[in-house]
Amino acid sequence: MNYKKYKKFETIKLKDRTWPDKEIEKAPIWCSVDLRDGNQALITPMKIEEKVEMFQLLVDLGFKEIEVGFPSSSQIEYDFLRLLIDEHLIPDDVTVQVLTQAREHLIRKTFESLKGLDKAIVHIYNSTSILQRDVVFNKSKEEIKKIAVEGTKLVKELSQEFEGKVILEYSPESFTGTEVDYALDVCEAVLDTWGASSDNKVIINLPSTVEMDTPNVYADQIEWMCRNFKDRERVIVSVHPHNDRGCGVATTELALLAGADRVEGTLFGNGERTGNVDIITLALNMFTHGIDPKLELSQMNQIKAIYEKCTKMEVPPRHPYAGQLVFTAFSGSHQDAINKGMHAYQQRGQDVWEVPYLPIDPADLNRQYEPIVRINSQSGKGGVAFVMDTVFGYHLPKALQADFAKAIQDISETEGEVSPERIYDTFKKEYIDIEEPYKFIKQRLIDLSDDDSEYERRAEVTIEDHGEVKTLIGYGNGPIDAVKNALNSSDDFLYTHLLDYSEHALTSGSSAKAAAYVQLRPKGSAVCEYGVGVHANITTATIKAMISAMNRIYRNIKKEG
Amino acid sequence: MNYKKYKKFETIKLKDRTWPDKEIEKAPIWCSVDLRDGNQALITPMKIEEKVEMFQLLVDLGFKEIEVGFPSSSQIEYDFLRLLIDEHLIPDDVTVQVLTQAREHLIRKTFESLKGLDKAIVHIYNSTSILQRDVVFNKSKEEIKKIAVEGTKLVKELSQEFEGKVILEYSPESFTGTEVDYALDVCEAVLDTWGASSDNKVIINLPSTVEMDTPNVYADQIEWMCRNFKDRERVIVSVHPHNDRGCGVATTELALLAGADRVEGTLFGNGERTGNVDIITLALNMFTHGIDPKLELSQMNQIKAIYEKCTKMEVPPRHPYAGQLVFTAFSGSHQDAINKGMHAYQQRGQDVWEVPYLPIDPADLNRQYEPIVRINSQSGKGGVAFVMDTVFGYHLPKALQADFAKAIQDISETEGEVSPERIYDTFKKEYIDIEEPYKFIKQRLIDLSDDDSEYERRAEVTIEDHGEVKTLIGYGNGPIDAVKNALNSSDDFLYTHLLDYSEHALTSGSSAKAAAYVQLRPKGSAVCEYGVGVHANITTATIKAMISAMNRIYRNIKKEG
Repeated sequence: MNYKKYKKFETIKLKDRTWPDKEIEKAPIWCSVDLRDGNQALITPMKIEEKVEMFQLLVDLGFKEIEVGFPSSSQIEYDFLRLLIDEHLIPDDVTVQVLTQAREHLIRKTFESLKGLDKAIVHIYNSTSILQRDVVFNKSKEEIKKIAVEGTKLVKELSQEFEGKVILEYSPESFTGTEVDYALDVCEAVLDTWGASSDNKVIINLPSTVEMDTPNVYADQIEWMCRNFKDRERVIVSVHPHNDRGCGVATTELALLAGADRVEGTLFGNGERTGNVDIITLALNMFTHGIDPKLELSQMNQIKAIYEKCTKMEVPPRHPYAGQLVFTAFSGSHQDAINKGMHAYQQRGQDVWEVPYLPIDPADLNRQYEPIVRINSQSGKGGVAFVMDTVFGYHLPKALQADFAKAIQDISETEGEVSPERIYDTFKKEYIDIEEPYKFIKQRLIDLSDDDSEYERRAEVTIEDHGEVKTLIGYGNGPIDAVKNALNSSDDFLYTHLLDYSEHALTSGSSAKAAAYVQLRPKGSAVCEYGVGVHANITTATIKAMISAMNRIYRNIKKEG
Repeated sequence: MNYKKYKKFETIKLKDRTWPDKEIEKAPIWCSVDLRDGNQALITPMKIEEKVEMFQLLVDLGFKEIEVGFPSSSQIEYDFLRLLIDEHLIPDDVTVQVLTQAREHLIRKTFESLKGLDKAIVHIYNSTSILQRDVVFNKSKEEIKKIAVEGTKLVKELSQEFEGKVILEYSPESFTGTEVDYALDVCEAVLDTWGASSDNKVIINLPSTVEMDTPNVYADQIEWMCRNFKDRERVIVSVHPHNDRGCGVATTELALLAGADRVEGTLFGNGERTGNVDIITLALNMFTHGIDPKLELSQMNQIKAIYEKCTKMEVPPRHPYAGQLVFTAFSGSHQDAINKGMHAYQQRGQDVWEVPYLPIDPADLNRQYEPIVRINSQSGKGGVAFVMDTVFGYHLPKALQADFAKAIQDISETEGEVSPERIYDTFKKEYIDIEEPYKFIKQRLIDLSDDDSEYERRAEVTIEDHGEVKTLIGYGNGPIDAVKNALNSSDDFLYTHLLDYSEHALTSGSSAKAAAYVQLRPKGSAVCEYGVGVHANITTATIKAMISAMNRIYRNIKKEG
């Protein structure tokens, strides 16, 4: 590849930069450009009713500044703004913004579109980069500056006639390819022409129109600008980063460290080419650092659905916070750690979220825990146990986890990913519904204990043994012991030891079922097996678990023999 | 949203950092983890033949280090490595890498899988973060360090028995959540245990297992580590960034400034959750700064096709460099600037690529110029002209560009995006195929000029006029003039002035056709119209263009009347 065909753009390096020592402490002013930069980059631009729906979504999410279009450039955008105004769709605390090139006829048409608004941001721009001055405009620095100044003059003049309040925004477009001192010169001329002051601030938007360097370089440019404005107080420093090098979010974050007050971006990073910066990721990055994001993003699936409907774009499966796969851990060790971390978080009743591999609680975005773990050939027992626990409510004992995970791994090695339903079906088939050669029919348990004295318990268990019905009787110091002894009373059966027992309610309420786990080992053998029984009666569940374990042992011995 | 539930992880802030003053000067050692971290995060993990195809692609792209799996964790990964070895699929200059937890039985099984290799990177890891030490392992710092040291000892011991060369890689997993001084302590213990030296370097991989902060913080962590290793020369510092905050690329770039030597990542950022860092974006970011990326990425569409086939993931349309839409400019002013920039670049015969809004020449990735411009209601004349020029070869005169763009804008306002084909069909219908009420039938041109003297030219033009065939005769000082006078000789016609004429070959070679553009204005009218004619004979093309313009004028006058 002929890399010698390229050179990086040489810009400022700020030796005494302060931004790397800073931290983001509060959310910036957010300005959505979904309806302008986002919309213009769609294969199928939004229809007017889709624009209304998107506008409503942006308002609901809490955006207070929304760029609604470039009304002087197309009839649809003009009509849309008129609809917003005429149908009173703009809440009092939301300011709409309109973009226009700094050209007379476009500025005049823009003001026509604004009639009836009590406030608006008029956003004028012209390109200032070295390259565009040369190949696109063929104009000198002074001539380019004049475009900005003349545009500002006209906006000022038309604002005086306008009934509402006009806030000026000026963008030296292609700022990242502009000499910073020249960009500053143009911006100061705009500020002076407007008569900007701390009571009459102007938004100076410094776009990373094309992302041209590593994010630290943009941060240096922004810090340099912030430090060199004649009067920083009369400026709201805004950034508008694109994502050509895949660093839009980082670029914006470092620009905020460097002093920017305001961010223009879109939902999920829609926009020209590689897109604008994704405001949702920015806001949730702040949220997960304990900073109020000043946006309401908790209904993530709904936000995504409206976005996808209006834009006909899809949010990719690995998109931070919103993608289908971002709360999915495939690795066994990750799954195990999430499992343990979730339990620790819940058991300790922690105030602060801390779970390995989950930088955010999916529930805070109204997303589900269930799909966190997908089981494939590389999932360990932790993952399988997690699915059984969180999706189906079975708290498998450790040794059973390992045992069952092996069965699932065998499936996944040939079939790929195993769905939770498939896992549950396998569990049922392997542990709960195994009824050959022994099958539980009924039990009769006589329990004579009371608080004061200890009596013998007697169990009568009726089972089918290779098709033949038998009733067995056993005694013991508790129901489990009595049942075990009943089962061991027949020479036809394997004589077994009980190694482990646990039981828990599967659901709550009076009709709750219990799941019992029993591990048995036949006398004189190292083979031991778990069995599982499910029943509303906890004793029945236990007996069924024991019979399940016996069937599994029988099957193993038969296999070996 | 309850942002108080979150706190950022407090780590080092390096006051005397040097990385922001640095620039990336060369490509790092690339290590692909597509077949491990990437594969393990797929809904449908790759089948063995897909793994072979992916491995082959990685080799073809120029990767010299490839992590091929976690052979001790699954039979498929074990079998795949054996296949690579037994079928001699690993080129001499490529080193395969295998991952394993630092646990005895896994390390032993890993070495089994390596038999027959003459070199391999054995990559051991254990998690060192504060959170995981607490909730997952419930172990002290010393105990966690011991896991790393014991693992290293065993790898060393098994390496001595192993016939090939073993390079050790150690990862303090969840490094970003680990105290840097403790991470350093564990790494130094590993280095000492191994007996690392500048002749026997160890890869110390410092993963951003979960992206936890802005990229500058990771850079500080990496610079701190690089500066504090007892002997920097015995370490290859590797990074393995994930993308939870959408900053994986930036994180890696700043880590390179901070001193990292090596990057682990994947094609297009596949990997757990939000993915690993995308090596393609990193490499092309370097490429566009004039740095040899040490990867061959020019067949981008092919790379994408193999990737999508093997992983069943899609490269999103806005993905840098590779996405379907990244060489598409929708905005009219962008299109105009691209148009002018491309012409300047070509005309000046520049060595260095510089075109507005195109940070890379799409041709360097074997992508097409044609789809750069898509036309929607916000495209200006530049965009439409660009499509007609680059896709279809028509160099429209300026005034015709504006005229035709209006026709396209009318379509796009109701239909959305307009495809190049639709643009061309509209152009044909509006300008080339318009044959009512006048239709060209034939011409006879007598040209008596020679080098020395000036003679009269005589034109006989046969046309249909409202269905009636007429032959008209005219004289002039050139063929165009003579034809114009022939057409003007009949009172039945509009008497017109010729305002503009241009003509060019549409294709090259002897069978080339020419396109002629003629602008006519009827006497006593301000309405003027372009007509276009296409023919192998340049005179015929011109006559057809004139008749086309007459038909357009006629249509307009009829509309008005």
